[in-house]
Amino acid sequence: MLGLLIVDHGSRRPEANAQVVDMAARVARLVPAGTLIATAHLDVCAPTIADGIATLLAQGVDELHVLLYFLADGRHVREDIPGLVRAALAAHPHVRVELGGALGPDDLLAALMLRRAGLTSA
Amino acid sequence: MLGLLIVDHGSRRPEANAQVVDMAARVARLVPAGTLIATAHLDVCAPTIADGIATLLAQGVDELHVLLYFLADGRHVREDIPGLVRAALAAHPHVRVELGGALGPDDLLAALMLRRAGLTSA
Repeated sequence: MLGLLIVDHGSRRPEANAQVVDMAARVARLVPAGTLIATAHLDVCAPTIADGIATLLAQGVDELHVLLYFLADGRHVREDIPGLVRAALAAHPHVRVELGGALGPDDLLAALMLRRAGLTSA
Repeated sequence: MLGLLIVDHGSRRPEANAQVVDMAARVARLVPAGTLIATAHLDVCAPTIADGIATLLAQGVDELHVLLYFLADGRHVREDIPGLVRAALAAHPHVRVELGGALGPDDLLAALMLRRAGLTSA
């Protein structure tokens, strides 16, 4: 069974942490109904990556895709998140896992910046 | 004359700092030819926001739009960047300025996360 884990950095501000939940709802509208989705924060607060993976495994997920809500392909994306995902799956060798990449750079983000600045409606 | 300043957080990693320059090239392809564009980092390294604004003003910009390469609407977006922009423009009251908002949350970012995870080609 397919499961998606959406990971952001995590913040001390509850409004910032709510954003990954909002993003999970948006992803849910783009994938087949019934796709299992959990959210996690890399750091600062729960749910942790281990929490999110445990939630998905408890629902029978054996094909896990990790979606990254990060702009840049830095240390968090290259090292920290893969390490935590591997650790959480160490006792579950039957689970297939694929890690996504950082969002940027991309033309979609350029269009979105212009929209946020009120310069286009795209 | 219209000028765009694209601001990211800034990093100690040159590859991370190159991303805002890459994004500026992508924005340039979406706006009318000849639109003046500069980049700046909020923190850590140059060009600073003051540097970027000085570059644009020296080229005759009197209508400045600040585009934010940030996912979340946190303290950097709400306080730090507006404060630095105001300070840089304090001696230039003739310049009109508009600040954009953070990129997230948005359906485009949900679609882009799925693409980065290899789950769609959208």
